[in-house]
Amino acid sequence: MNREAIYHRTMLPFAYPVGEHELRLVLRAAKDDIYFSEVFYGDRYAEPGSEVSTLMRKEASDSLFDYYTVTLYTEEKRVRYFFHLSDRREDIWYSEKGFSVARPKEGLFQYPYICPADLFSEPEWIRGRTMYQIFPDRFCNGDRDNDPEGCLKWGETPKADSFFGGDLKGIIDRLDYLADLGIGVIYLTPIFKSPSNHKYDTADYYSIDPAFGDRDILKRLVSEAHRRDIKVILDGVFNHCGKDFFAFQDVVKHGASSPYKDWFNIHSFPVRAGKDPNYETFASGVYTMPKLMTHNPELREYLIKVGEHWVREVDIDGWRLDVANEIDHDFWREFRKRVKAIKPDAFIIGEVWHDSLEWLRGDQFDSVMNYPWREAVLDFFARGEIDAVGFDERVAGLRMAHSSNIWPGLVNLLGSHDTARVLTLCSDRRRAALAAVFQMTYPGLPMIYYGDEIGMEGGDDPDCRRTFIWDEEGQDNKLLNLYRQLIKLRRIFPHLSDGDYRTWHTEGNVYAYINDGIGVVINNSDEDISLRLDNFTIHRTVDILSRK
Amino acid sequence: MNREAIYHRTMLPFAYPVGEHELRLVLRAAKDDIYFSEVFYGDRYAEPGSEVSTLMRKEASDSLFDYYTVTLYTEEKRVRYFFHLSDRREDIWYSEKGFSVARPKEGLFQYPYICPADLFSEPEWIRGRTMYQIFPDRFCNGDRDNDPEGCLKWGETPKADSFFGGDLKGIIDRLDYLADLGIGVIYLTPIFKSPSNHKYDTADYYSIDPAFGDRDILKRLVSEAHRRDIKVILDGVFNHCGKDFFAFQDVVKHGASSPYKDWFNIHSFPVRAGKDPNYETFASGVYTMPKLMTHNPELREYLIKVGEHWVREVDIDGWRLDVANEIDHDFWREFRKRVKAIKPDAFIIGEVWHDSLEWLRGDQFDSVMNYPWREAVLDFFARGEIDAVGFDERVAGLRMAHSSNIWPGLVNLLGSHDTARVLTLCSDRRRAALAAVFQMTYPGLPMIYYGDEIGMEGGDDPDCRRTFIWDEEGQDNKLLNLYRQLIKLRRIFPHLSDGDYRTWHTEGNVYAYINDGIGVVINNSDEDISLRLDNFTIHRTVDILSRK
Repeated sequence: MNREAIYHRTMLPFAYPVGEHELRLVLRAAKDDIYFSEVFYGDRYAEPGSEVSTLMRKEASDSLFDYYTVTLYTEEKRVRYFFHLSDRREDIWYSEKGFSVARPKEGLFQYPYICPADLFSEPEWIRGRTMYQIFPDRFCNGDRDNDPEGCLKWGETPKADSFFGGDLKGIIDRLDYLADLGIGVIYLTPIFKSPSNHKYDTADYYSIDPAFGDRDILKRLVSEAHRRDIKVILDGVFNHCGKDFFAFQDVVKHGASSPYKDWFNIHSFPVRAGKDPNYETFASGVYTMPKLMTHNPELREYLIKVGEHWVREVDIDGWRLDVANEIDHDFWREFRKRVKAIKPDAFIIGEVWHDSLEWLRGDQFDSVMNYPWREAVLDFFARGEIDAVGFDERVAGLRMAHSSNIWPGLVNLLGSHDTARVLTLCSDRRRAALAAVFQMTYPGLPMIYYGDEIGMEGGDDPDCRRTFIWDEEGQDNKLLNLYRQLIKLRRIFPHLSDGDYRTWHTEGNVYAYINDGIGVVINNSDEDISLRLDNFTIHRTVDILSRK
Repeated sequence: MNREAIYHRTMLPFAYPVGEHELRLVLRAAKDDIYFSEVFYGDRYAEPGSEVSTLMRKEASDSLFDYYTVTLYTEEKRVRYFFHLSDRREDIWYSEKGFSVARPKEGLFQYPYICPADLFSEPEWIRGRTMYQIFPDRFCNGDRDNDPEGCLKWGETPKADSFFGGDLKGIIDRLDYLADLGIGVIYLTPIFKSPSNHKYDTADYYSIDPAFGDRDILKRLVSEAHRRDIKVILDGVFNHCGKDFFAFQDVVKHGASSPYKDWFNIHSFPVRAGKDPNYETFASGVYTMPKLMTHNPELREYLIKVGEHWVREVDIDGWRLDVANEIDHDFWREFRKRVKAIKPDAFIIGEVWHDSLEWLRGDQFDSVMNYPWREAVLDFFARGEIDAVGFDERVAGLRMAHSSNIWPGLVNLLGSHDTARVLTLCSDRRRAALAAVFQMTYPGLPMIYYGDEIGMEGGDDPDCRRTFIWDEEGQDNKLLNLYRQLIKLRRIFPHLSDGDYRTWHTEGNVYAYINDGIGVVINNSDEDISLRLDNFTIHRTVDILSRK
């Protein structure tokens, strides 16, 4: 047995409560190395030796490891446990103290107590919904009177600094389109006052950008969306502000005597707010985006109040948080508490492109933009870098990297305003459609980047931010219908979100899996293929692409 | 190369800041499997491929793994990194995405940003100090007027419910003894009003038990201790209260109409506060200790105010927190913030007997009672279950299980009021003395259980709670002198606390190690042994036991 491969520790993502009396345990072992794994468990205060055992299930495998899991019921909410592993040649026991050949009596793993306050709870409403990301300047122009000067014509190729006049009124006008598509959540990139088209350089956290509308229009958007059972998420940019933010301007004007000087990291005075800035910025020297010192108590309070304000004031349903990984964990803990105090089922999504476990411990975010998942999807469907086995291993590894509690909310995306579009990255439309099929039948909260559903193309930013094609002539109707059908499927089977997922079949580029009792077979190759599928009773088959 | 053994994840205890611009990385690999490990790193926003490399150092080894570590300097406070490993037959690269044979370009590990608010800081004063645990009823009787009725005679064998009359005045009387011994911190088991001798069943969190003294005497104790540069830590019991606690009595009296009913988990009314209790208790059915529902906001506020009160009111230097692992993490986060707001260098120690990483993430405790370390020490010195190699591996594994930030504060103990005494567990006095030598030359904050230094014996509770032997005839003077010398050594070399520790030599039961440049050789066998020691320039040798 490869003992060095065996891993468990009483912490995320290996041990965590999934209910008031339920503890989920995950044991990792080398792939195909173990014949069985069982866990012995009992009340921490019961007599040593009184532990009972239950078999664990091999739930998933990545390229190197098998993951054995079990959910224990504990009346007393406190568990002492250890593992018994066998590969049919050797039997070993595994406890907090390490490995032993005899059943261990002390040094056992301990989950001391399932505290109600430590339970992770996410909004019930996320199940079965599909999210839709809107870049407001490019989605729909509903009010020509508020267009910024020098707007390009709808449909022209966008440059980094182009404006097109899209606005909140435009979104309201298209809510019926979104409702018809089946969308359950819209997420808008920033809408607060700012000089740019993307508005990630906030000038005023309390005003809607006049080119997008005003507070009343936002209120109407939210209430109209809610009337259609569509939730609304806004984008909060708290890592940095724009250079026009009043506090930064005060420091520019008053230098070291400004009461706001500690909201920023100014290296010397006077402030040089242009090229070669003498203050810390977002990324490297982006002088239009001064980095905010979120550990400053006054600033922290200011920003968290912004988070509270828009939930209370216009009833939004959550926040997507920009560059969330460069802000301290304590800020997010307080942010979560304060926002959830106003709206307990608000949904909080962080922008974290890489390993995000440190933010998904239950005390900070409900979810992240799941870019590592997107990478796996592109490697299989777009780039052809991995086959079905490799793909299955990648997504399995990503599931097991997190607690199952957060699976239903993970925002699985094929693209965003920060990436090239999925269709452009795929060699053909069929591959992009298959990626969508996978996205919509995989655990989590699928997010569609506006226009992907009608077959819009676009390379890296700014090309991925083209204006929405409302002319039906320019839309891929077949793809749109597929999306509509998939979104509906997800509504009908909301527990597709949860993660009762298993691999069914892998053969070359054919990948079959079962999620919530629904078997999906994806042929990601160029040929027709005959398969023999086992271990699953098929009641009815549907070819999703052809709807036969 | 055993790839399954290789582990790193951008989280504790594998990646964490140790300074505003310093990131420590730990890579685990199978023992003796890797020839070298280097890390490539750069600014997250710099050009891909611009990463530079530095070699990692094999810092420690346990029974299965080697741990390679490095501390990186990052001007930008944000790091993208990946590893390059070689066993001289094979070269592999390791990134967030997994292993590759070519240098990876994407899917790299990312430490996004070292936020000042996320930095762990512990009191500077812990370095070089030795802690001393006092069970007040048994340490010294300084005031006979406040003795509880039915006190046994000092020196008699204690039973579970015996009282002996020790008190705070007695501790004040003996501060000179402690100062002479070199003690830098005293930790008192609970002193608040309670009917028991141990007082873990608090009746009133705001009163000193009259048998121990009163608030003024506690104030005098703290100020007299401070005058001798001795810090004072109190024991806070917030997991449960005593049955006489006013809120519980209110529920007993008024049942479901009590405003305090949600401070407890009462299964049915009326409350049956005796054998076979109908409410949740500490452990199993300990009816004198009703479990407190710390997620109740009013109770939470009540208890945290207790934490604040005694710091503000009598200037104590920290808290040791009883059954800390059965209270929710959020409670402890708030507790830490509120206590540190009053006294930033207060020291917070949780009682956690098992794996404690989840409480030692920087947001909750500064330290825990390090019982797993005690187990390793006993296995080597008392039980003879492991040899020097096994012992070295055990303590190395325990170090690597935590971030190096918390090493200096970990409360390393040979025993406590909850265990048999070290001398009783050892086969002879020499072994107990060697254990003390190890304790006092190992990283962390050593804690002496009252009387261990004079050679007191005692089996499991209540026998380990005998009265202190003040008659010098009954004291082991040689042991006391050794302790005095070791405590002084630690004062002279405060960086013994830090963890710049390496194994020097292991041979049978001889264990040699170097801590902060000080080499220690321990012969834990029954024979005289000749050794050849390498790799260390010896300036001066001292036989600590014989002081030659």
